Amino acid sequence: MAKSPQEEHPVKAFGWAARDKSGHLSPFHFSRRATGEEDVQFKVLYCGICHSDLHHIKNEWGFAMYPMVPGHEIVGEVTEIGSKVRNFKVGDKVGVGCIVNSCRSCDNCENDLENYCPKLIPTYSSINQDGTLTQGGYSDIMVSNEHFVVHIPDSLPLDAAAPLLCAGITTYSPLKYFGLDKPGMHIGVVGLGGLGHVAVKFAKAFGVKVTVISTSLGKKDEALGHLGADSFLISKDEEQMQAAMGTMDGIIDTVSAFHPLLPLIGLLKSHGKLIMLGAPDRPLELPVFPLLAGRKIIAGSGIGGMKETQEMLDFAAKHNITADIEVIPVDYLNTAIARLEKADVKYRFVIDIGNTLKHT
Amino acid sequence: MAKSPQEEHPVKAFGWAARDKSGHLSPFHFSRRATGEEDVQFKVLYCGICHSDLHHIKNEWGFAMYPMVPGHEIVGEVTEIGSKVRNFKVGDKVGVGCIVNSCRSCDNCENDLENYCPKLIPTYSSINQDGTLTQGGYSDIMVSNEHFVVHIPDSLPLDAAAPLLCAGITTYSPLKYFGLDKPGMHIGVVGLGGLGHVAVKFAKAFGVKVTVISTSLGKKDEALGHLGADSFLISKDEEQMQAAMGTMDGIIDTVSAFHPLLPLIGLLKSHGKLIMLGAPDRPLELPVFPLLAGRKIIAGSGIGGMKETQEMLDFAAKHNITADIEVIPVDYLNTAIARLEKADVKYRFVIDIGNTLKHT
Repeated sequence: MAKSPQEEHPVKAFGWAARDKSGHLSPFHFSRRATGEEDVQFKVLYCGICHSDLHHIKNEWGFAMYPMVPGHEIVGEVTEIGSKVRNFKVGDKVGVGCIVNSCRSCDNCENDLENYCPKLIPTYSSINQDGTLTQGGYSDIMVSNEHFVVHIPDSLPLDAAAPLLCAGITTYSPLKYFGLDKPGMHIGVVGLGGLGHVAVKFAKAFGVKVTVISTSLGKKDEALGHLGADSFLISKDEEQMQAAMGTMDGIIDTVSAFHPLLPLIGLLKSHGKLIMLGAPDRPLELPVFPLLAGRKIIAGSGIGGMKETQEMLDFAAKHNITADIEVIPVDYLNTAIARLEKADVKYRFVIDIGNTLKHT
Repeated sequence: MAKSPQEEHPVKAFGWAARDKSGHLSPFHFSRRATGEEDVQFKVLYCGICHSDLHHIKNEWGFAMYPMVPGHEIVGEVTEIGSKVRNFKVGDKVGVGCIVNSCRSCDNCENDLENYCPKLIPTYSSINQDGTLTQGGYSDIMVSNEHFVVHIPDSLPLDAAAPLLCAGITTYSPLKYFGLDKPGMHIGVVGLGGLGHVAVKFAKAFGVKVTVISTSLGKKDEALGHLGADSFLISKDEEQMQAAMGTMDGIIDTVSAFHPLLPLIGLLKSHGKLIMLGAPDRPLELPVFPLLAGRKIIAGSGIGGMKETQEMLDFAAKHNITADIEVIPVDYLNTAIARLEKADVKYRFVIDIGNTLKHT
């Protein structure tokens, strides 16, 4: 007979879980594995709420596994390390993002691209190597192979650093890989949410000119005043869009709803790159001729590798980049998720696990 | 009152033209400009029939200008040069491809990418700087600024070299730009027509492993035996396609009909590149998630710049690469175009202008 979540492993753990696709979260007793030779165990202090948590808890992507403790923007303090752990010690401030394991031997793994390993194990709603469910950071304790743990630089506040582990690396990595990090370049950022607002900050730190592209005029002041974007385009304003045609070296598109690509392709210079970070649930329409006429590229990018995640955090520390967050207590979780569904947050909820998660 | 085509310029010219979107071609008297200071005038010997000629003569792309002398795979022998021409002399074997002018001062022009100049002037069905129609190579004589003329290396047969001026550079350029020219790589070529068969030859010359992807089993022997491809995939055979998933560094997609992209994206390795060279007349369906999961790219590419066109011809000469052609007399033109419409040619018709174009 299968063991209960509390009996699977020796270490007691407690968090909030979704039990079914209603997406409602409630307190949940489970367990974590004992700290292995290469493992780092840490007390969770903060965990960001990523928009993908919302999709997962409601099984909108079709591969939810319940009970599900979501959360992959996790920071905390090391409480125990395995005998072979080299890079961490008890008391270190650390983070775990979207991945807790990969094959460590494929081409991608050997090139520090664990995020593209075909056998990567996501932080939650997946199966560990021992056959148990992975469980994320809406919980009191985490354990992970040290390879998938990063150091949070001292100068970064832990709460506002948490979202960097997903939103940060997801935007930093494509800006670097696709060469959109050169001073003097001009990029567009479509959608000013959790990903978009961090993309603006990284791009500005690279010395890149940033235009925020949005359907909503309401975000203009925030974009220009608070986030430091250089200009703002209303995507539905044909005159504005026409005037901006052919001016951008690249576009970071964070929108996960169905939307037209043709106007965005038009904003690109020749050889420009439209980078998709959101995953609409149905295919978009791809006009091919405008790609041919300007040797333009449409690409996707998904999070980043562990080495680059550490590099991103160090860069963020150097340039004082964190997410703009609203810190919430655990018992506000279901309300926060309902608000997130309406995009009612600037720009990321972060759960104060350390101070508000009470065992029940 | 507007001048007739015969009166516009001082140099008499004769060719075959379409007069309307019926696409029927017939003999046509017109004129060419006098050879300017920087111009090269040449007697046309051969001209390839590109698939886009077919679209243009029937105005399927909506910007046809009649009367239209098609043809942008033009080779011939220099008959006159302007006083400032530096790189050509009378008697040289030369070619003109898809472009006869560009602004010469934009970023693209300054980087030898005249093909992406916003003001480029196509070889036919466009407007010259003097306001007259450009007319292509289905004619006895051509004149062009020397910047847009290339040398045909001595070792290349003129008839089979003609298609390199469009099909050749259109496939060579993206293989180079997108880094799909490294020995040991594996690429797919979708569609074995004018472009596809030349793509196979260039890729093999680069030392790249080539898989031809086709809807038609009938092309297998040709692809493997004659063209030297390494393997052959029937795109409708799900078992074959499944077995080839994740094996290709890039794909050259030459198909201009509507077709699904998802199976092709699946054939790519992580970070693989799907290069579109055909322009379907309606948008394709773009599934975004598979791009994100493997950091894959969909890109377009259109012909190539003049410097690279010469480089491509020199490379072709070194590696004995020419198009596979069926040489036809001019009066077979309408039949050839009807056959091309049914893809009934291996792989390019080339008109023997020098020997068969008779003034009427």
